[in-house]
Amino acid sequence: MLRLLLPTLLISATPALAQEAAQPDTGFIFTTFMFLVSGMLVFWMAAGFAMLEAGLVRSKNVTMQLTKNIALFSIAAIAYYAIGYGVMYPGDAWLIDGVFGTFAPAVLEPVGLEGATPDLAYASVGSDFFFQLMFCATTASIVSGAMAERVKLWPFLAFVTVLVALIYPIEASWKWGGGFLDGLGFQDFAGSTLVHSAGGWAALTGAIILGPRIGKYKAGRVHPMPGSALALAALGTFILWMGWFGFNGGSQLAMNDAANVADIGRIFANTNAAAAGGAVAVLLLTQLLYKKPDLTMILNGALAGLVAITAEPLTPGLGQATLIGAVGGVIVVFTVPLLDRLQIDDVVGAIPVHLFAGIWGTLAVVLTNPGATLMAQLTGIVVIGVFVTLASTAVWLILRATVGLRVDEEAEINGLDVSELGMEAWPEFAKG
Amino acid sequence: MLRLLLPTLLISATPALAQEAAQPDTGFIFTTFMFLVSGMLVFWMAAGFAMLEAGLVRSKNVTMQLTKNIALFSIAAIAYYAIGYGVMYPGDAWLIDGVFGTFAPAVLEPVGLEGATPDLAYASVGSDFFFQLMFCATTASIVSGAMAERVKLWPFLAFVTVLVALIYPIEASWKWGGGFLDGLGFQDFAGSTLVHSAGGWAALTGAIILGPRIGKYKAGRVHPMPGSALALAALGTFILWMGWFGFNGGSQLAMNDAANVADIGRIFANTNAAAAGGAVAVLLLTQLLYKKPDLTMILNGALAGLVAITAEPLTPGLGQATLIGAVGGVIVVFTVPLLDRLQIDDVVGAIPVHLFAGIWGTLAVVLTNPGATLMAQLTGIVVIGVFVTLASTAVWLILRATVGLRVDEEAEINGLDVSELGMEAWPEFAKG
Amino acid sequence: MLRLLLPTLLISATPALAQEAAQPDTGFIFTTFMFLVSGMLVFWMAAGFAMLEAGLVRSKNVTMQLTKNIALFSIAAIAYYAIGYGVMYPGDAWLIDGVFGTFAPAVLEPVGLEGATPDLAYASVGSDFFFQLMFCATTASIVSGAMAERVKLWPFLAFVTVLVALIYPIEASWKWGGGFLDGLGFQDFAGSTLVHSAGGWAALTGAIILGPRIGKYKAGRVHPMPGSALALAALGTFILWMGWFGFNGGSQLAMNDAANVADIGRIFANTNAAAAGGAVAVLLLTQLLYKKPDLTMILNGALAGLVAITAEPLTPGLGQATLIGAVGGVIVVFTVPLLDRLQIDDVVGAIPVHLFAGIWGTLAVVLTNPGATLMAQLTGIVVIGVFVTLASTAVWLILRATVGLRVDEEAEINGLDVSELGMEAWPEFAKG
Repeated sequence: MLRLLLPTLLISATPALAQEAAQPDTGFIFTTFMFLVSGMLVFWMAAGFAMLEAGLVRSKNVTMQLTKNIALFSIAAIAYYAIGYGVMYPGDAWLIDGVFGTFAPAVLEPVGLEGATPDLAYASVGSDFFFQLMFCATTASIVSGAMAERVKLWPFLAFVTVLVALIYPIEASWKWGGGFLDGLGFQDFAGSTLVHSAGGWAALTGAIILGPRIGKYKAGRVHPMPGSALALAALGTFILWMGWFGFNGGSQLAMNDAANVADIGRIFANTNAAAAGGAVAVLLLTQLLYKKPDLTMILNGALAGLVAITAEPLTPGLGQATLIGAVGGVIVVFTVPLLDRLQIDDVVGAIPVHLFAGIWGTLAVVLTNPGATLMAQLTGIVVIGVFVTLASTAVWLILRATVGLRVDEEAEINGLDVSELGMEAWPEFAKG
Repeated sequence: MLRLLLPTLLISATPALAQEAAQPDTGFIFTTFMFLVSGMLVFWMAAGFAMLEAGLVRSKNVTMQLTKNIALFSIAAIAYYAIGYGVMYPGDAWLIDGVFGTFAPAVLEPVGLEGATPDLAYASVGSDFFFQLMFCATTASIVSGAMAERVKLWPFLAFVTVLVALIYPIEASWKWGGGFLDGLGFQDFAGSTLVHSAGGWAALTGAIILGPRIGKYKAGRVHPMPGSALALAALGTFILWMGWFGFNGGSQLAMNDAANVADIGRIFANTNAAAAGGAVAVLLLTQLLYKKPDLTMILNGALAGLVAITAEPLTPGLGQATLIGAVGGVIVVFTVPLLDRLQIDDVVGAIPVHLFAGIWGTLAVVLTNPGATLMAQLTGIVVIGVFVTLASTAVWLILRATVGLRVDEEAEINGLDVSELGMEAWPEFAKG
Repeated sequence: MLRLLLPTLLISATPALAQEAAQPDTGFIFTTFMFLVSGMLVFWMAAGFAMLEAGLVRSKNVTMQLTKNIALFSIAAIAYYAIGYGVMYPGDAWLIDGVFGTFAPAVLEPVGLEGATPDLAYASVGSDFFFQLMFCATTASIVSGAMAERVKLWPFLAFVTVLVALIYPIEASWKWGGGFLDGLGFQDFAGSTLVHSAGGWAALTGAIILGPRIGKYKAGRVHPMPGSALALAALGTFILWMGWFGFNGGSQLAMNDAANVADIGRIFANTNAAAAGGAVAVLLLTQLLYKKPDLTMILNGALAGLVAITAEPLTPGLGQATLIGAVGGVIVVFTVPLLDRLQIDDVVGAIPVHLFAGIWGTLAVVLTNPGATLMAQLTGIVVIGVFVTLASTAVWLILRATVGLRVDEEAEINGLDVSELGMEAWPEFAKG
């Protein structure tokens, strides 16, 4: 912020670049800055997950849920730097061609691009790393909600570490790193499958292996356990909705010309339309089915709309985007009770939102994008699903067999905040 | 996010554009991206309204207030796409010249601008639609707070639908669509009148027709009904303040050259100054009048400052902007009790903030913008006021006569959350 | 938003500029817009402090804490405009050369840059003012948390006024205004010392002079007073983390070429890495030391990581940034109990986070930036520390001797909300 001396400093710091032609630089600046703004918005989704989950768990587990959320994001930042980014984007350095990338920590371009040959047709490495990291962290965030209120902190974080360092980077490299699914023509613009379904499969396996909360399913009946702070859950939803503009818009990966920025404009408008479609569909449907709109379902409907449009936010028209999102919302309404019937206890509805709506969105690509085929989409869904399910199951089972996954019964009943952390989230408010 | 293959894809997707001259494209990219960032910030205001209102209603009505807020935004997104945008920006296709636009759903430019002739001196249609939609939704958000705690969900949403599909687009087209008020020289930079007063008139008619909450005015005395969560109300205010940078800054409508971006810089600084002026004025005034600063008034003071500067955030100096905002805050302090004396029950203070400070801001344009005349400003205020009041009154009365506007007495006393939605927002916390 | 008439208006409003060469304008637009986006993010930190502090004080003091936060920001906006900006950036008009700038209110460039000669190699004055103002406000925000729950509102705001109008601008001018510390080679990229330690010294002197809360230290033992809403504290931390991208990224002060935007990319990635490092370090350390991770410590660990990287977010690699942040977190874990042993009652941990981690970060510059010397860094730390401590002490003592600093015992025990403001933040919830 040393304003006065700046021009001089700039000239001395970047002598070569300052004289170069401006044209390609301009595109580089646009795309790099777009990544930074987008990545910052996707970062913000971490806060959205934290608020959504803090609002949907019971008050006795809020401190734990917040701890898990900030810890998983921080672990993702470190593990993706140290391992994940290299595995996901091996360039030409695959260990197994198209399937498994190299182990190499991320390295940024030098300060002032001194001696570097930046990819002027793309963006700076730092901005790309920052943006991609946020996607990795998002995948991990999806898992924490489904397993809330009974999973132990450290085993959960151990799972997250494997997820962000290996499972996500490996499967994402198959498409975004230029691996074999990309060669097959699988389309997943911003990650309905690569991020959301992947997180959803990890959450599903975890929720099954962990088992339901004590008292959730008794004598064949579902006992609702209402969230403790719906205002925070709504806030979390708005935060996620906002962050999704960066999630989908940034995935255009370029803003260097008129066509690209116009496409990003389409993506913003479509992303918003799909969220609105999901929310309105659930609003109407819960009124019709239950005679009362259900706010937590509506919130999840908006999120399901967002997940559904994520595989292809560019090619649909606004009406199509609204409908794609609306179907996402409908899926939530019908699959939340389905999971309950199967006694799979997903505390916040992460599996319907991220997994089921993610599958729908990935399939829906064929409706508007002529470059997609149903076969390629199904292949991607199945391949990713099988891989993440197997890998996650292995990690969960190893953790269960060694350190144990679940807190003991007394700790669960008393709440994880007091029993595991010794710190209440709302210590002064009497429980009604 | 398929980084490796991107350059190739880009070249094949936009062959014509890539070769074109860069100069106009650069301006197009700047303005389009500015619209997307600004529109995202105005979207965020929807969360601000939700938090402000969730914090200012009593705990028994929080779920309902959240439901209304997410529903109204989602309905606005769909209705503005299907009807509102076409009515508001008819171009040359007015049904009644300068008064009523056409019915045509919004259509975005094709993917990659393929075969399109974008307006390179402006911005992409997608970014424009995205930005304008958020203003429409803001207008609707204003109404929900004033009528909280007693209006039925569905009639309220029916009103919102008419507001966002017709009432707002029609009156906004008179200025921003190039209609007759624009021809008269009416100045309203970002919508003190077109958005805030319009929402305020709709809220005022609604609050009058609906009547006050049970117990609010008893035996000629005002019974305060304190908000349930002031931390959320403060959060909502900060969110709105933040979003306002996009609201006012984006309304410059161009960032393609040095003059425009410098103007946006002025607007950001002035918008902030006006909010600060409003907050400090109320801080001092409530100390003087009541011997104790009043936080909810201070929050509304900041918002009133923001509303006041919205009609002309560009031409004032920083000191003038501070004073314009301060007067907005003073207006809040004196008109909140005025409404109470008239037994008009505005739960969150939306009418003083958006309507009264909006009128003040629209008049204040003449103080700093030599292009504005008092006559034109008054004309705009009166024309918009009469139109929105008549149209809103008609809709409210029709709804009251048919489906009814108000929940029954028992439901109101028990709270809308339990009686209408069967879901409490803070279910675990005992009421003191 | 008058889309149709815009091109015409633009041409008539800026005839000269439109014809000029595009090259320097493009850089000016980039940097100016970058300042606006960054400044908006730093504004958002005000909300972060408000939520963090509202969550960490007891429920009986939340309204007061919110009032202080919105008031201090608003006062900062006005005082920095009227006095602070001129003092901090005197250009060639020092009153005492290199030590004390001039008194002159900030003046923005004219509308449309009409007749102005903008610094096309830098950014618009409006955007620069907007960005710098937010740093000033941040310095003030740091103080409010440490002195919570017992300081009177008006004396606190009087202190803030002096801090933002004089103390901060004077010391910051020594480096960022081109004053004597800049001449000595002191390096502080975004203000570990100039903003965070400065706020920390003001908080430390205030907390000592004010004395601890009643009952905090009894019979030589520390009595914990847990925060009332950890979800809001976590939200505040995420908000601050997000805002820090603008805080550090914007401090690059230029985005006009490829090298600068790539550097901003490095800064974003490093800033995130340091926060993650701080959080993970505290997560592990509190588990090791106390057998239970401590969420409030983890939140402060992330913030300490952010403070630590702020003095030099550009030159470290990602691994180095993670470690610099981790050390910041470790400092928090060891200095929070240290302050308690000294019976210095810092309600939210502001002094460990902003002062101690700020000192560490300023020293750590020498590890990665060859342009920094330990002597220059120590000089800066000591000079700023001595100045802010002496100036703050003087102001606190004058206030204590005249109007008094502390509420009376009964008011403190009943809580400042009821006794000083007559308004509870959570009025409906029974205290347990």
